[in-house]
Amino acid sequence: MADKKDVPKHDVIVVGAGPAALTAAIYTTREDIETLLLERGVVGGLAAVTDKIDNYPGFPDGVEGLTLSDQLRKQAERFGAVIDLGEVLAIHDEGEFKRLETTEGDMLARAVLIATGSDYKKIGVPGEQEFYARGVHYCATCDGAFYRDKKLVVVGGGNSAVQEAIFLTRYASHIDMLVRSTVKASDVLQGELQKFIDDGKVTVHLGTTTNEIVGQDNAVTKVVGIDQASGKKVEFPTDGVFVFVGLMPNSQFLKGSPIDLDKIGFIKTDEDLHTTMPGVFAAGDIRSGATMQIASAAGEGATAALKIREYLEGHL
Amino acid sequence: MADKKDVPKHDVIVVGAGPAALTAAIYTTREDIETLLLERGVVGGLAAVTDKIDNYPGFPDGVEGLTLSDQLRKQAERFGAVIDLGEVLAIHDEGEFKRLETTEGDMLARAVLIATGSDYKKIGVPGEQEFYARGVHYCATCDGAFYRDKKLVVVGGGNSAVQEAIFLTRYASHIDMLVRSTVKASDVLQGELQKFIDDGKVTVHLGTTTNEIVGQDNAVTKVVGIDQASGKKVEFPTDGVFVFVGLMPNSQFLKGSPIDLDKIGFIKTDEDLHTTMPGVFAAGDIRSGATMQIASAAGEGATAALKIREYLEGHL
Repeated sequence: MADKKDVPKHDVIVVGAGPAALTAAIYTTREDIETLLLERGVVGGLAAVTDKIDNYPGFPDGVEGLTLSDQLRKQAERFGAVIDLGEVLAIHDEGEFKRLETTEGDMLARAVLIATGSDYKKIGVPGEQEFYARGVHYCATCDGAFYRDKKLVVVGGGNSAVQEAIFLTRYASHIDMLVRSTVKASDVLQGELQKFIDDGKVTVHLGTTTNEIVGQDNAVTKVVGIDQASGKKVEFPTDGVFVFVGLMPNSQFLKGSPIDLDKIGFIKTDEDLHTTMPGVFAAGDIRSGATMQIASAAGEGATAALKIREYLEGHL
Repeated sequence: MADKKDVPKHDVIVVGAGPAALTAAIYTTREDIETLLLERGVVGGLAAVTDKIDNYPGFPDGVEGLTLSDQLRKQAERFGAVIDLGEVLAIHDEGEFKRLETTEGDMLARAVLIATGSDYKKIGVPGEQEFYARGVHYCATCDGAFYRDKKLVVVGGGNSAVQEAIFLTRYASHIDMLVRSTVKASDVLQGELQKFIDDGKVTVHLGTTTNEIVGQDNAVTKVVGIDQASGKKVEFPTDGVFVFVGLMPNSQFLKGSPIDLDKIGFIKTDEDLHTTMPGVFAAGDIRSGATMQIASAAGEGATAALKIREYLEGHL
């Protein structure tokens, strides 16, 4: 390991460059706190690959994900934020400084904000990638409203799949729910789902795998599955597919670190967004309890920046 | 009291129409949850009366407070939010419904979001109102960066005044701090302030009242005070004044209600932004622990809307 003298030192390193990260950087750099953002993939995070964002507050007619990401980046850079490409591999507490092992070498920071976000788990079938955000969705709150009076397929059978399917009934004319094995949701949720099944609004297909998403001209037309009992191919004509098979928090690099994660891998924080490692904070979709909403992530980024400032000043 | 049959019923009533309230309404109405906002004053809250907002994420060159407020309002109305003029006088828990006593008569709501915000306490001297946001400020994080290498006066002597004065030293060339009696801040803060006093960057004037803010051509030029010991008038030439004499949460209508407030009067919530009255939520600057930042308020509005939906669906 290199000597401390040779290792670049920063006031704040933000891990990630999505809405939480960029908002935090707008705040810290505007307050003359030197800040480096390290991003391993796309600046803007999930927001950047979202077609249209209808519910980010301040844009009455909606805004393209790429446009919003770009504006957040510009705003942070305007105040002096620096965004570098790099992946953080581990964080070590060395007292006043945290040492970050990264693909670009070791770095030191007085405070760290982890804002690496989460990814929606994919099912990995043909058509899923091709029709992403153009018929294939992972967030009912974000995209459900685009399917008023349309047919939908929901993939999944856990708590979130059932809850989101119930939610989508307020828009969709009918929902086919494809469940690989059996429904594994709470009794309350199952009871509520049953009402929509009785109404004929939802049809649940148990023991049915999802094998292909088919479409043409930029739109999904059907989902092809296999009925496990008969081994036969089944087809579900639809206008869109919502996949709810879980979230994958981008916290793999924290495995084995003293930073507490919840059982899914989200980072636990206190109300000051402080993790269990002093000087290390978390905000946005990586945080335990996150809502997966850009507005909430940005809000937490602002709050985290204020708390980081208090920490650096010695009041936290 | 009118019979329940005669009382208008709503799914959600939002008390207030600032950034937290409007963001929550964007979310609830987009999800077809009928929502009424009741505002006693200005739609947009404190944001609407802020000249330029530099750190609301998504506007790289800043945005006028009135413009942002207007866009938030348009966005909420686009999805069906209704904003009415009215003041809530009390909230009563009647089980499934909450009864709101208002200046427009009683109303019932399945869920309530309190987003009434806070006001900065004023000192009530000539010039304070006239130069509001044009030389007289109440938020260092918001407006400090406009005073790089300029002279400032800070009014106040409590924890927040000392902390914000220390913060403002990163911008201002010199700060005169006017303290009516003595400094009442923690030892840690006083110790830190002393460093800036020793450096000559901050001068503390104890026993000095602030009696007038003077300016011309839309800019503050000096503050006039009185030295209590000698009774003599003292003048402080300056480019701007920051007043830190406390916050006043707009929660007077909750005095005596079962909704828990902290000792200053901010509303206590759990991590789901739920208050101690079931079905009543709080978001933004009225919430205990609020950061007084628009981004944070908007983010909490989004989170509160999702939690209200879960509550209405019976999962919370």
